[in-house]
Amino acid sequence: MTITIKLKAKVFDITAEVPVSVLHELDARKIDAGYLSRIEVNVGKQKETCILDTSLTFVEEGTIGFFKNTADQLKVKDGVIVEINLLPPTKSIAYITNKIKNKSLLKEEVYEIVKDIEENKITAVELSSFVTACYVNGLSLEESTYLCNALIEAGDLLDYGKKEILDKHSIGGINGRVSLILTPIISSLGYFMPKTASRSISSAAGTADCMEALAPVGFTLPEIKKILEKTGAVIAWEGKFDLCPVDNTIIKIEHALSINPEGIMIASILSKKKSAGATHLVIDIPVGSKMKVKDKESAERLARKLITVSKSLGIKTRALLTDGEEPCGRAFGAMLEAREAMRILEGRYFDNLANKSCLLAGELLELAGRAKEGEGFNLAKDTITSGKALLKMQEIIKAQGGVISSSEQLKDAKFKKEIFATTMEGKIEGWDMEILTKLARTAGAPEDKEAGVLLCRYVGETIKKGDKVLEIYSNSQDKLSYAEKYLRENYPLRFESIILEEIE
Amino acid sequence: MTITIKLKAKVFDITAEVPVSVLHELDARKIDAGYLSRIEVNVGKQKETCILDTSLTFVEEGTIGFFKNTADQLKVKDGVIVEINLLPPTKSIAYITNKIKNKSLLKEEVYEIVKDIEENKITAVELSSFVTACYVNGLSLEESTYLCNALIEAGDLLDYGKKEILDKHSIGGINGRVSLILTPIISSLGYFMPKTASRSISSAAGTADCMEALAPVGFTLPEIKKILEKTGAVIAWEGKFDLCPVDNTIIKIEHALSINPEGIMIASILSKKKSAGATHLVIDIPVGSKMKVKDKESAERLARKLITVSKSLGIKTRALLTDGEEPCGRAFGAMLEAREAMRILEGRYFDNLANKSCLLAGELLELAGRAKEGEGFNLAKDTITSGKALLKMQEIIKAQGGVISSSEQLKDAKFKKEIFATTMEGKIEGWDMEILTKLARTAGAPEDKEAGVLLCRYVGETIKKGDKVLEIYSNSQDKLSYAEKYLRENYPLRFESIILEEIE
Repeated sequence: MTITIKLKAKVFDITAEVPVSVLHELDARKIDAGYLSRIEVNVGKQKETCILDTSLTFVEEGTIGFFKNTADQLKVKDGVIVEINLLPPTKSIAYITNKIKNKSLLKEEVYEIVKDIEENKITAVELSSFVTACYVNGLSLEESTYLCNALIEAGDLLDYGKKEILDKHSIGGINGRVSLILTPIISSLGYFMPKTASRSISSAAGTADCMEALAPVGFTLPEIKKILEKTGAVIAWEGKFDLCPVDNTIIKIEHALSINPEGIMIASILSKKKSAGATHLVIDIPVGSKMKVKDKESAERLARKLITVSKSLGIKTRALLTDGEEPCGRAFGAMLEAREAMRILEGRYFDNLANKSCLLAGELLELAGRAKEGEGFNLAKDTITSGKALLKMQEIIKAQGGVISSSEQLKDAKFKKEIFATTMEGKIEGWDMEILTKLARTAGAPEDKEAGVLLCRYVGETIKKGDKVLEIYSNSQDKLSYAEKYLRENYPLRFESIILEEIE
Repeated sequence: MTITIKLKAKVFDITAEVPVSVLHELDARKIDAGYLSRIEVNVGKQKETCILDTSLTFVEEGTIGFFKNTADQLKVKDGVIVEINLLPPTKSIAYITNKIKNKSLLKEEVYEIVKDIEENKITAVELSSFVTACYVNGLSLEESTYLCNALIEAGDLLDYGKKEILDKHSIGGINGRVSLILTPIISSLGYFMPKTASRSISSAAGTADCMEALAPVGFTLPEIKKILEKTGAVIAWEGKFDLCPVDNTIIKIEHALSINPEGIMIASILSKKKSAGATHLVIDIPVGSKMKVKDKESAERLARKLITVSKSLGIKTRALLTDGEEPCGRAFGAMLEAREAMRILEGRYFDNLANKSCLLAGELLELAGRAKEGEGFNLAKDTITSGKALLKMQEIIKAQGGVISSSEQLKDAKFKKEIFATTMEGKIEGWDMEILTKLARTAGAPEDKEAGVLLCRYVGETIKKGDKVLEIYSNSQDKLSYAEKYLRENYPLRFESIILEEIE
């Protein structure tokens, strides 16, 4: 039995992603509907499903409000009479309720939810509830796998006509641009490597931000294919194209709520990799008290899950637990981290960042059968020593439209502040990653590409009074002062024997 | 360190309850903000905190979109340049995250969340996550008590200058209008009883819907006070005034998600009662497989919680577990249930609805010290037998502006369908409450006040072939046909020995 009522339309001059219509609460009651109910709107031969917002003040009784895109769809203008009736609840809402009540989701249920997100049939309020329920109740490995496959099917699948596509992913949270070193290493050995990268969310710089210090990173999919055909590799910002739109919708809600349910994270990472065509994958899991993954046990559990789901997708995968307790390299900030990667490729030094890059590249080469077990690291390192990786990086930068070919071309920010040890000295036990990241961000990173922090000493080294501890860079004198002030209130250094009471 | 950027304003001609502004994602990134970040908008001397929505298409880069009320607040017109900067995350969002992570909330944290809901500083997306987290992780009794007190403080507190105010609440889900019988009973004994009532959400009729068949129910608080001064009692729809606006905001989200976390429900019920001034309260908890509370153990647990929180608010409270397995009385539908209540007050019969009303009234009278333990029921029943309760009900109806004084004045719906047993007979073991409710709603309840279902036999009675089983009423011939069709597909009767294969 369907109750239909007639209402006068009122069009609001804005568009909304989800087709929303607004009813007076008393009108909503007439058709047994409420906030977020689904209704069918009929006018002439036009028909549209809308999600309901209800209000006592937004529209008068007898009137229904439409956003511009819905009104256009329905060919409705102000004052036109439309008919509406309540639709039965969408199935995916019932499935979300199941997850809230800690029932496992079946494959078709997960697919239904993803389909409805894709078709804008779920509101942010409902999605928020789903993400929260996934966080609290967790997703089983089966559910994660369903979600991953559903995300892949809802997005584009890149096909380069290549048999082997190598890729790397980091769970993130640490500085040091492994991808800027590993991509040219792998690619210089003849492998196809389309590296899609994100920008910073809370770090000093994301891989896309760093690469942008060397070359443009925003490309459409056809542009990416062209670059790949030319060089076999690309390091592109994933925000310009949209391989997995549903995933991005979910991530938007996760960011807003500051939660990242593991089961969704696994599906999200691997769907992006599969969509980008990966056949071989190495995953870097930094483990540290300030990282996303806090301890070895959690890291191993996560690694096992990632490998299981990845295997089911036909991707050969290895996961590596890496040190997330100490800085990787010395730089925090887009240009500074990019310059560091270039310097390593130029063979100027071989630090823990270079080591980690070769370790991960080595695993990938072993996985792809290019190197015997235990020999991948040396093969990777050889591409640096021989200059092959640098040549490849220069080629990639050029293909992406960049003009940088050497670390020398990368200029410092306008303002710089050197920080010296004045009262304390000793052997460095550790740096506080969180404080260093905040310091770089206070100086202007990641928006200010040249802003950031450069450490002058590694862990294990000794600092004496008068020694330079670190340098802060910024293109804004104000921000540099703020950064200095922040540093005075937050000590980033731990000493093995003595405590630094004051810097400078 | 605050990053400020300048943008051109664009005003949308609609209002939003929460002050929202819309930024291009690239502009949001410039100030390190994202979806649902809080920003400060400055223009001249005007300043406003807005919640951010981000989009790639909604506004162009360099432009910020405002809804009309925010634009008015800021005195901003299209094209005006405004300055924005990111604000630190609100504390209540961090507290919501704590609840998601299953940490107990402190008193000040609960108060902060309620304050932010009250001041429209929390979005529906965030509230959805909070409600979901409360459902999955639960609230402790302490947290419920904090929430209850915070809701009370955020709303209006009614003060009638009376020492004793008696009240009754039902957890709901069952037919039979106890409040329409109990209120005049209590009030006829000289007690003050301002009964606030809700409309139906999923039942055939709410108490407010039923009372509306007898008299108007929508009153402002001053009007309610006036009626109370005249008669000592009122049965008013709680939707017209807004004692606990924050509670209603939360309930809107609960309905949208179809979840009702127990810890919030307890706070919600008791905050409304305390705000309405209750000093003595009886709570009816119907227990049944189709009720909100499914079994005796859950009911007892809930009762203990309600009494504990209630006690802390200074309300003397008893909870009664009642039969929610079988219909209470014979009617489903606003007018039909109202007429049934009137008939009981008129002394025409004394069924299980009358019995339950006197039981609950009796408990309340014992609680208030008017009757000795075990004598409340008889005192309540006496007010019916003596006609005192009916007189009081007539007085209440008149004071609320109604013209009904007898059940005889209540006229049937235009159309009626009588359903007879044609193939089956036997002793009735039970009625399916869910089917009866849906049947009444299919016939037009609660929107159609006269629509509904009247049972012709009680549980335990025998039906023979040719006997009338039930009657369906509707003011729409179409809806009546739909109801008949529904009934043909859904059997509401269970027999002790034989199964009814077909009705009519």
